[in-house]
Amino acid sequence: MVKMALFGAGRIGRMHADNLAANPKVDLAYVYDVYEPAAKEVAERHRTIVAADVETVLADASVDAVLIASSTDTHVELITASAQAGKAVLCEKPIDLDIARVNQCREAIADCNVAVQIGFNRRFDPTHRAVYDAVRAGEVGKVEQIIITSRDPGPPPAAYIKVSGGLYRDMMIHDFDIARFLMADEFVSVSAIGSVLVDPEIGALGDVDSAMVLMQTASGAQCQICCSRRAVYGYDQRAEVFGSSGMVRSDNRRPSGIIRDTATTTDARVPLTNFFIDRYPEAYVAELNDFIDAAATGRVPSVTFEDGRRALILADAANESLRSGAVVQVSYD
Amino acid sequence: MVKMALFGAGRIGRMHADNLAANPKVDLAYVYDVYEPAAKEVAERHRTIVAADVETVLADASVDAVLIASSTDTHVELITASAQAGKAVLCEKPIDLDIARVNQCREAIADCNVAVQIGFNRRFDPTHRAVYDAVRAGEVGKVEQIIITSRDPGPPPAAYIKVSGGLYRDMMIHDFDIARFLMADEFVSVSAIGSVLVDPEIGALGDVDSAMVLMQTASGAQCQICCSRRAVYGYDQRAEVFGSSGMVRSDNRRPSGIIRDTATTTDARVPLTNFFIDRYPEAYVAELNDFIDAAATGRVPSVTFEDGRRALILADAANESLRSGAVVQVSYD
Amino acid sequence: MVKMALFGAGRIGRMHADNLAANPKVDLAYVYDVYEPAAKEVAERHRTIVAADVETVLADASVDAVLIASSTDTHVELITASAQAGKAVLCEKPIDLDIARVNQCREAIADCNVAVQIGFNRRFDPTHRAVYDAVRAGEVGKVEQIIITSRDPGPPPAAYIKVSGGLYRDMMIHDFDIARFLMADEFVSVSAIGSVLVDPEIGALGDVDSAMVLMQTASGAQCQICCSRRAVYGYDQRAEVFGSSGMVRSDNRRPSGIIRDTATTTDARVPLTNFFIDRYPEAYVAELNDFIDAAATGRVPSVTFEDGRRALILADAANESLRSGAVVQVSYD
Amino acid sequence: MVKMALFGAGRIGRMHADNLAANPKVDLAYVYDVYEPAAKEVAERHRTIVAADVETVLADASVDAVLIASSTDTHVELITASAQAGKAVLCEKPIDLDIARVNQCREAIADCNVAVQIGFNRRFDPTHRAVYDAVRAGEVGKVEQIIITSRDPGPPPAAYIKVSGGLYRDMMIHDFDIARFLMADEFVSVSAIGSVLVDPEIGALGDVDSAMVLMQTASGAQCQICCSRRAVYGYDQRAEVFGSSGMVRSDNRRPSGIIRDTATTTDARVPLTNFFIDRYPEAYVAELNDFIDAAATGRVPSVTFEDGRRALILADAANESLRSGAVVQVSYD
Repeated sequence: MVKMALFGAGRIGRMHADNLAANPKVDLAYVYDVYEPAAKEVAERHRTIVAADVETVLADASVDAVLIASSTDTHVELITASAQAGKAVLCEKPIDLDIARVNQCREAIADCNVAVQIGFNRRFDPTHRAVYDAVRAGEVGKVEQIIITSRDPGPPPAAYIKVSGGLYRDMMIHDFDIARFLMADEFVSVSAIGSVLVDPEIGALGDVDSAMVLMQTASGAQCQICCSRRAVYGYDQRAEVFGSSGMVRSDNRRPSGIIRDTATTTDARVPLTNFFIDRYPEAYVAELNDFIDAAATGRVPSVTFEDGRRALILADAANESLRSGAVVQVSYD
Repeated sequence: MVKMALFGAGRIGRMHADNLAANPKVDLAYVYDVYEPAAKEVAERHRTIVAADVETVLADASVDAVLIASSTDTHVELITASAQAGKAVLCEKPIDLDIARVNQCREAIADCNVAVQIGFNRRFDPTHRAVYDAVRAGEVGKVEQIIITSRDPGPPPAAYIKVSGGLYRDMMIHDFDIARFLMADEFVSVSAIGSVLVDPEIGALGDVDSAMVLMQTASGAQCQICCSRRAVYGYDQRAEVFGSSGMVRSDNRRPSGIIRDTATTTDARVPLTNFFIDRYPEAYVAELNDFIDAAATGRVPSVTFEDGRRALILADAANESLRSGAVVQVSYD
Repeated sequence: MVKMALFGAGRIGRMHADNLAANPKVDLAYVYDVYEPAAKEVAERHRTIVAADVETVLADASVDAVLIASSTDTHVELITASAQAGKAVLCEKPIDLDIARVNQCREAIADCNVAVQIGFNRRFDPTHRAVYDAVRAGEVGKVEQIIITSRDPGPPPAAYIKVSGGLYRDMMIHDFDIARFLMADEFVSVSAIGSVLVDPEIGALGDVDSAMVLMQTASGAQCQICCSRRAVYGYDQRAEVFGSSGMVRSDNRRPSGIIRDTATTTDARVPLTNFFIDRYPEAYVAELNDFIDAAATGRVPSVTFEDGRRALILADAANESLRSGAVVQVSYD
Repeated sequence: MVKMALFGAGRIGRMHADNLAANPKVDLAYVYDVYEPAAKEVAERHRTIVAADVETVLADASVDAVLIASSTDTHVELITASAQAGKAVLCEKPIDLDIARVNQCREAIADCNVAVQIGFNRRFDPTHRAVYDAVRAGEVGKVEQIIITSRDPGPPPAAYIKVSGGLYRDMMIHDFDIARFLMADEFVSVSAIGSVLVDPEIGALGDVDSAMVLMQTASGAQCQICCSRRAVYGYDQRAEVFGSSGMVRSDNRRPSGIIRDTATTTDARVPLTNFFIDRYPEAYVAELNDFIDAAATGRVPSVTFEDGRRALILADAANESLRSGAVVQVSYD
């Protein structure tokens, strides 16, 4: 059994709480949230304890690991404190919106000999994983082009946009990670375009809602990413890996497999799943299992702190390219 | 909370036990199996009590409902005893292989004012349900033709075949139920063909492994069912409802949405899910929720004892048609 | 060059005339139709001669072959006269609606050493042919079950129904042929159901508009056919061949490959092609090429007179089963 | 009847010759090719005349229109001479590889009151056209993002690459045109990446074989194009138009609709059509019909000289971006 604490009992925290409670290898010992009623609700549902503060949790030597699902601005502090307290850490993405703070955090935890895993859940989705496995097994031969399409069902509220860090660091960061995951090589250049096509309020806040990015590796392999904050047909999450001997694709998901034929249309399917919690349920479970295994065995996690850092570096490069209109050379130092 | 007992801790019983344990509205109070170690394993996993015998369970007035997942030959006795003890009953299909015994059971429980639901789980599958909803909403107009394809990934062992009641009563009974469910009308004639094409041992036991059936309602609406005990590409479960203004279909399910393109093939998907436990996980959960609601509120269950009885009557008619080579007129009296 | 005459300049005759004219191996020498203006129109379009009567054509020793696209009641007479005049014959299906007349025709042409091919065009469709080739190449292993769905976009006028010979001999005869073609074995039993669900006028004329048939070979291989005179989503023509090592299917065809995603639907395609002339254009060309090759080389045609006769025997058996409500044993003597 | 001459009897010229010969509104009067045997072969096949030289053709006042399918370096001269001779012109893409020569040609024919159409055949493909029509009909709302994937089945020989003008001007020029066609707005910026991933010989010739481009309109609408010189699964030609109320896509084409299910794969389709002549047969016919209509009525062609010029300007911008690594602002002056 891995004894765990959950920091953050908002929407995604509650989802994690359900998975923690259902996991036979986990003993969910504490829940903490700055907004205590939220923590209480989770604690009651899963018959666990509301922690008065983070310190109490970290001081409890019997706690093996923490899951950080609190707001982004708390991540660095919680990762640092938890890792220094010897707890394994599974932290929701992004590590932080500021690469300088991420780098400080990296240094601060450099000597902590604990698993620190970043919550790029999509890597654990059965379909994305099957694509990854097929690519690694050589099914497409040498990878030459990756095309990722990533569109949310609808734009978040302005309050969210304000603290999000912008589309590239908030939304496309998942796609940067999937691109790195599928390419299994580092991108060395990024060029980006972005526009406000969906919601003028997003533009008023200095962000974009529609974006495309081109990236290239040192060996010339290429990647396109396309994001939009709104797709009326649902949560559009596709990835295509093309290579010298074929192509594999990760297809969308629908809540049911019904097919309709009428006088005006044939083979029509229902709109895509609503959003990430409906699209990636198995991924969150698999992510947790993988983390628990890393925490229990001491092995390196499948998604490292450095993976979180590099995705942010690509997002920053995209932002810079958007500003400058130039291709940005990427350094991971 | 609905306090429940589980009778039967075999493969399907264990699956139900997981769903019972995970259901926040259920208190799983007892597990019973003639083979005590099986009951013990489930009891330990879900921290509940192994019942020494059925009587103990039924005598416990605090038990509201039972789930019967034991072998088919015990169903009638357990349904009768449980219903007479005032427990709501969810019983795996079939009620029994002998329509005479089913009729006796019907009589025996006629005055028990409890919910008795038969485990035709497929009615609760999101896709079959979406097809049903679309048909009921009039999307295909007047229903004219239903085509059901139902193929298992591989034949069961001889030991299973021996006690199964034969393909029509064991396997196609699900399809008879889905046909009735989607047609929302009764079939009045059945003609059947059947052959041994997959496994000669099945033939040696007097059963068939490949079968087709035609059925018609009084108003002339038509249905085809096609079954095979072995499909190398996985568990093939399709239903098509065709009518005056269109068609809706229930498509197969795959463990992942990966799509492959190679030099020899394009748009290739992975084989279908392995078998019913992988194909219908949501259906078993939804079935349980629906039953709990019926048990708690006293309403008529969504799948009644009579539904179980009528599916068996159709299976018997198919057997008779297979023997006689003639169309069989069906009576539900 | 094969010098040919066309008998019949109606809708399907005109389509054949276009193919004959465009075929570099054919010299279209004559067109004949009982309704002379129809023949004239074709003759003008393709700069050929209107024949005053059939005899003139058959008396012209330079004519190698005839294509019979006139009304069904003229087929036997034209096949007989043409074959006896030493012309190769490509005759639209069916040979005749009366098996006795077909048998007489068979006898009458038994000693004519010419190619006589029946116009089961679907055998030449690239997709049906690919399915056939895959099956013959052993891709599905031993064939166990065939499912054919065949629905016209809309019912024909009453005038057509009156002389059609009924759904089984007029419409399902194509499906009987495709079933024999794909099975590559003979069916020995037939049972049929049929109803009037689409158009009461069809019922008033003693015909059905919705029909299903079960057939079996001596070795127990099975076949389902499902027909309807009306599918609002277009011309629905599917065939599925299932066997010990897999399944191959012949899919429908659409006039364009556009895919739509909206707020209410995803992956929607356009309705199917309108009807046989739009669905099977390559098939008619390939059929003609195949016939020309048989006519030129003297080899046995790919679709023989006997194929036409046997499809009719199956249609008659279906009619008999519909009347009697019993399974009909088929004899091809 | 439109009396026409064909310049160029190579592979694509022969295909056009077939379409010209089969078109009831066209009288194919002359064929010319610098390599006379090629012209002779076409002339014999279609019973027309081999022109001794271009001048003879243009001097024949009865010739209404010319189809230019000769090598790219002859296009400008032939367009100019033909238009100045008062002939309507359908010229294969590209107009020329040198924008300066294109601009001179534009000037030279400015006062010729004849239809000059550029052979962007894909605009006439039923599927691309259906996508266009859907977009114009407002089905996707405001167009926000276009994604075009365009991969040839295999790289051309070095001899072809040498004179091709490079991937952007030779291959992606079709995609620039389709992007403009579907967007119905002008792109104002282009950034490009390109690599040699397929064939080092292409790199040795100074060209790339794998390329991606980002473009934006003045209003911020976005476009991605992805090209490769080799897709082992066939000729991959997809376009996706995404907007405020949905998405429409142009799907690939296969030579047959067969679907396969085996122990290792399900729903597998055959590889895509081989190349443009197999992929776009209807498009070439429709293009010709459209041109004949423009030539006969004097209306502006559907694909103008200016369309050909602007696609080249975008290709040049992509080349410049590839060289400079910067986003290139596009001017169409």
